This record gives sequence, C-alpha cells and structure tokens, in this order.
Amino acid sequence: METTASVHTTTVASLSEANRSNILQYLYHHGISSRAQIAKALGLTPAAITKITARLIEAGALEETGDIEGRKNRRSIGLSLDATRFHVVGVKFARSLVQIGVFDLAGALLGLDNLPPVTDGTIGETIRDIHRRVNLLLDRDPRIVAIGMAVPGPYLREVGRIAVVSGMQGWRKVNFITEFTHAFRVPVFVEHDARAGALAHYLFDRESGGDLAYYLVGEGVGLGVIDHGRLFNGAIGAATEIGHVSIDVDGRLCDCGNRGCLERYCSTPAIHAMLVEDGQVVPDAAAMSHTQACRALFAKAHDGDERALAMVRSVGRYVGYGCVTIMNAFNPRRVVIGDIVAEAGEPMLREVRRTVADRAIPELVDSTEILLSGLDADAAVAGAAAVAVTQFLERPSLFFDVSGAS
Amino acid sequence: METTASVHTTTVASLSEANRSNILQYLYHHGISSRAQIAKALGLTPAAITKITARLIEAGALEETGDIEGRKNRRSIGLSLDATRFHVVGVKFARSLVQIGVFDLAGALLGLDNLPPVTDGTIGETIRDIHRRVNLLLDRDPRIVAIGMAVPGPYLREVGRIAVVSGMQGWRKVNFITEFTHAFRVPVFVEHDARAGALAHYLFDRESGGDLAYYLVGEGVGLGVIDHGRLFNGAIGAATEIGHVSIDVDGRLCDCGNRGCLERYCSTPAIHAMLVEDGQVVPDAAAMSHTQACRALFAKAHDGDERALAMVRSVGRYVGYGCVTIMNAFNPRRVVIGDIVAEAGEPMLREVRRTVADRAIPELVDSTEILLSGLDADAAVAGAAAVAVTQFLERPSLFFDVSGAS
Repeated sequence: METTASVHTTTVASLSEANRSNILQYLYHHGISSRAQIAKALGLTPAAITKITARLIEAGALEETGDIEGRKNRRSIGLSLDATRFHVVGVKFARSLVQIGVFDLAGALLGLDNLPPVTDGTIGETIRDIHRRVNLLLDRDPRIVAIGMAVPGPYLREVGRIAVVSGMQGWRKVNFITEFTHAFRVPVFVEHDARAGALAHYLFDRESGGDLAYYLVGEGVGLGVIDHGRLFNGAIGAATEIGHVSIDVDGRLCDCGNRGCLERYCSTPAIHAMLVEDGQVVPDAAAMSHTQACRALFAKAHDGDERALAMVRSVGRYVGYGCVTIMNAFNPRRVVIGDIVAEAGEPMLREVRRTVADRAIPELVDSTEILLSGLDADAAVAGAAAVAVTQFLERPSLFFDVSGAS
Repeated sequence: METTASVHTTTVASLSEANRSNILQYLYHHGISSRAQIAKALGLTPAAITKITARLIEAGALEETGDIEGRKNRRSIGLSLDATRFHVVGVKFARSLVQIGVFDLAGALLGLDNLPPVTDGTIGETIRDIHRRVNLLLDRDPRIVAIGMAVPGPYLREVGRIAVVSGMQGWRKVNFITEFTHAFRVPVFVEHDARAGALAHYLFDRESGGDLAYYLVGEGVGLGVIDHGRLFNGAIGAATEIGHVSIDVDGRLCDCGNRGCLERYCSTPAIHAMLVEDGQVVPDAAAMSHTQACRALFAKAHDGDERALAMVRSVGRYVGYGCVTIMNAFNPRRVVIGDIVAEAGEPMLREVRRTVADRAIPELVDSTEILLSGLDADAAVAGAAAVAVTQFLERPSLFFDVSGAS
C-alpha cells in the first residue's frame, strides 16, 4: 500500500525532469516563445531556463527559431518545439476493431491502417499482426519516437491486463505489458481508451481546457477525466469506470458482476439488442454487426422516421443519466461525448441536454458544456497517439539524453 | 473558462512556495529529520534546503532539535515542525448541529463546544453565535493560526454557497466567504464536510495512505476523495457528490432535481422515515430527531432484535451500492465509512462488504479496504480542523513572513 511518504517523495522526486517537462509543455501549448516568457510563466529564474533549454537544444528536443518580438519592441530569440519533427504511433484496440495510425506531435494524421475484424478466436493472430505492422512502420519512419496504445477499460495498469471486456472476454488474457513493452525500438505506453480520448481532446483541441471529461459511448461505455490538466487514474488505474456505474441497482446483470451498469443500456451492443427485439425499425438488424445496426438506426432517424427518432431519444436519455452522474461525480467544465453512439448526432445530444437540465444541480447545468466530439469514431485512434505524446512531454529523459541538465 | 495556459502556469506559479510547503509536509508526516534526509526525499540540493529552512526557522515555522543519528553513525542536526506549537479552530456545520473545536496540528482535541440545535429559523442567530465564540477562542489562545470550516456539500467554493442541503435549504442563503473570510484575526478556509473528513483521515491517521475515500453517511451522504495525496475537487468544487449519484433513475425524487439519489435511501432522514413507516422496531420514532431514531435502531440491532438487524442490513446494502459506485468511479485503496450511520457498526459493515464482493470488479474487491472511521461522528469536527492544517502546510507564506526565501 502506498504510504504518505511515497506520495510526497514521488511528487517531487525529480525537479529537473519536472522543469524540463514544464518547458516542453509550455512550448507545446503556446508555440514559439522566448526564454523570458517561459521563465515568467513557470516561475523559474532566467539562469535556470538558460541552462535547461541549452541541454534540451543540444539533445535535439528544442530548436532556436531566430528573432521574435519581445516586450518593449526588444528582439529576443524564440524557442520552438517543432511538432512535425517527431512522430508517434497510436494503436487502438476496440473489441473487434484494431487500428494503427501514425501522427505528428500535434495530432495530424499521417497514415492509418485498419486490421481485419477480430473475434475471440483470432486475438493471438491479431497480436502477431500488430507486431509485424508496427515494426514495418518503425523501419520506414525514423521520426517515430513512441507508441501509444488505447485499450478498453477497466485496464489494470500495474498488471497490464484488462479486467472486464463485456462480450469479448478473450482480450482479458492478453498482458499488454509483457506483450508490447519491450517489443520495439521505441517505448510503448498503454492507456484505457476513454482516457486516451480525453488526452486527445486535451492535447489536440485548443478549446478543451484543463477540466474535461471524454465520455466514450460505443462498443463499451467509458470515461476519461482530466482535472486541472491531470488524468484521474485511481489507485490501480481503474477509476472513472462510468460504464460499470449502476443506474438501477435492481437492473440488468452485467459481466462485471454488478447490476444496472450504464453500459447495459446505451452501448452499441445494448442498442443492437433493442433493435433486434423491436424487429421493425431496422428489420435486418440481427444480421448486422453492432456498429452497422446502430448506424442503420441513426440513418433512419436522420431521415425523419418517428420510431427511429424515439429510439434515439431513448438512448439519449440513458446517455444523459450517465452525464448527470459524471457531473455529480467529477464536475468537469466540459463533457465531450464520442465514439459510435455520438454519430446519432443532434437528436441524441438534445435529449442528453434535456435530461441533464432536468436532473443535475442547476449550478452544474449552468457551468458545464456538453458537446459531441469533433473526432469521429475512426479517428479515436488519435487518443492512442495522445497517450504517446503525453509521455513525450512529461518524461523527456526517456526520449533524450538530458544528463547534466538541472 | 480555464485554459490550458492557466493550468500550466498556476501549477508551477511559485516553486519557492512549493518547496517550502514540501518541506513542511515532509516534516509533518515524517517527524524530526535532518536536512540531508529532506534534501534526498524532495530532490532538492543541500544548498537550497539550507536556504529555505533558514528562512522557515527565522520565521518561527520550524526549529532545530539538536543532534540526531544520521547515515554511517554521523551526527546531524534535526529539524522539527512542532505540532503542539500551532493550534487551529475547526467549525463543523451539520444541518442542525454546529460544533466548534480547538486542535493542535496533529489533530489532538484541546476543547469542544456544541452550539444549540439549529432550525431553518435560527440560522442567522447561529451565525452570530459562531462569530462571538470564535473571537473568544482567538482572544484566549494566541497559538491559533487558522480556522477551518466544514459544510455540507455540494459546496460551490468560488461562490461561497452550498448548492443543495436536503431538508434544510436555509443554509443555502449563507455566503460563507462574505460571512467569515475576513471576520477574524486569522485566515478562514471552508471545505465540504466529506472532503474535510477525508483530510482528517489523511492527516491524523498514519494508516490511511494517499489514495483514500471518506464516505460520510449521516444527515446527508457525501464523499471526499484523496488521489495520490491531493483532494479531488472538480472544476467548481462540486465533484464527488456521491449522495446525489442516482442508484435508480426511476427512483425517489430528491431536492437536487435528480431521481434515486443515494442520499434518499441511507441517510439518517431516510432511515428515520423508514422507521416511522415501520412503526414497530422503534415505536416512538416519530417523536425523535433523525439521529436519535437511528441510534435507537442501532441499539436494538446491537441487542439482537431480528427486525432491527434486518433493517440495519438493508441500510448496509444501500451503503454498499454506494461503495461499489465509489470504487468504480474513484478507485481508492481505502474507503472509510463515517458519521452517524457508521455507528451501526459491524452488522452494517458486513453487509457493505458482502454487497461489494457481489457487485464490484474482483480486482477492485481484492485491492480495496473498506472500514469504519475511527473518528466518531462528534469528532468529525476534526475534519474542519484538518482543512485549516492542510492550508497551513500548503501555503506557508500565508502564515509566516518568508520573503527572501527561495
């Protein structure tokens, strides 16, 4: 068990690394800046900034960019973290869908690979395929500095395993740490998919701010919470599992052991089951995949079919119940709803907002923005890339020889 | 809206203050230590430690304690933060109960005052009484350096108001910031009661560790979460409102606007209502206060009355549902259940653990401790004191003249 001792020592274990990271993050978020601007913003002395940035420039992390205009029209030299000089690989594991993308540090997509659909029987084969494809990318692109992976949660980060994967428990047998950590020439970082999505919005969307929840409603229902610029993980990395928070303690049984889990009411498998049972709105739903069935429903609702619209609104109500819980539990400034179910669009979002207006504390209703993600579901692989970018910014000594810096 | 810019700048705004605070916290948690031990633990240079501690000694925050034994039997001078030299006042506002206590920094109770019971009509009078009594304490005890207040949540910290107080909305009209912030010779800090309870366990109980949830089940139901040594507040301070998280979206209506709020099933007013409806287990329940009725029930269960035991178990089940949600949402290492309902003791706790074993993810069941608070309900005023102690440790420049330190 963690003691207060280790809490305090790890927090400030390496002030040098923290200073380096703060400088990289400042340049990442603010663009070209002078040493004086950085020193002022970070509360560091000019001497410290000069010393640390000299090492970072020497190590190849930063570069000088010539004169920029400073205070009182004095010219000063700008520093830059060029986001196009470093690439990362993002691997997104959905249950049946694995995608591999290459991105630059700013989140620009440089290439995307869709793997063949995965079933419980082909997980081993898929893992081998990922090794092969990622190695190929690394051989071809020397700018790649890290690999991020996004996996369905709850992901036990210390163990390397996913604890529950409703409907596809085969993934539980994969140990992501032993399988991937030392498999490539660059470091690998694994994160829960909804947290990866939160990081993607935090890093790649300038509007997001530092108090943000990414509410993933897709094949599973997940949540990533960024509080004052930091991901909320919990003691063993299993926090913010909104999909397994019960909305009805006497409700539907879930694979996790709980009853009435939110995931059982508004994930794509839950919607698919509803469509099969209904039999009318999407008559051939039984023959479709979860995603296909949901997209067929959303298309019909989009065309104005009243029954389809009513079903979308009913889904929106459940997404809204989850949203009320997110607000009462985590109080973010912004809730971004993403993944497949977000494709239902405005009619769903309207119902979420109505449910929130009815049920959340008025002060929270007024101070919380609820919107749909700008990233489409396929692009959620950007979250995996954001996991790698986060580590690059937070742990520069893993990527550069900064020995001697302070 | 907070931008990423302000997130980064405030985090490292004052490295000097952070260093001072880290030194105070280290000494607070570890007792007498040498400069070398502190430097090593905090990753600071010996020169920096010498400079900062010199200022803190000069300002009266720390003192040297003579030789202690160091590495390789070398003697070195010890530094100490003497917890008995500084006192704090804690004011706890429950709905009908206000208590004022004086504590030292280590949480030792030096004096306790119970105010007359409060009703919606006497809130103004109570506020005046608090001013008078606190000023009297300040006059008598020059060691008092700060006042902490614990109020029922959700408390809107930027505004100074409580957003919802089920059953006693009069408290909503009190603005704690304008009422108290500049009212006394020492600074005042206000915190949500369950968070104050979490701080009390974190600071005053060595066993607690840094990943801790304090689950207050009393006149209201609240939660304080400490994650890696930091309180989780949310964007406007309204996070961790477990009492208003729904356990049944079609359930009982709550004052907050939501349905099925946990608070409606296991708070003392909910238990009281159950007892009045039942009419047999505690026949004169209708004439009692919420707390009295609950204590009568617990006493009867303690004496082996089967119906009383069944009711306590039923309450325990609801407390357990909340506990499962706490684990899935916040993943603490330890959940400490406190306040009036915790007085139900072992039969209640057993039912909570059974519910958790049934419904939580096995990995979480194995890695989470659930126990009853060592602090009894009256002593929860210690939480208010812990709010003041936390500020004393985190913001030393508010309490000492440390100008010139770095």
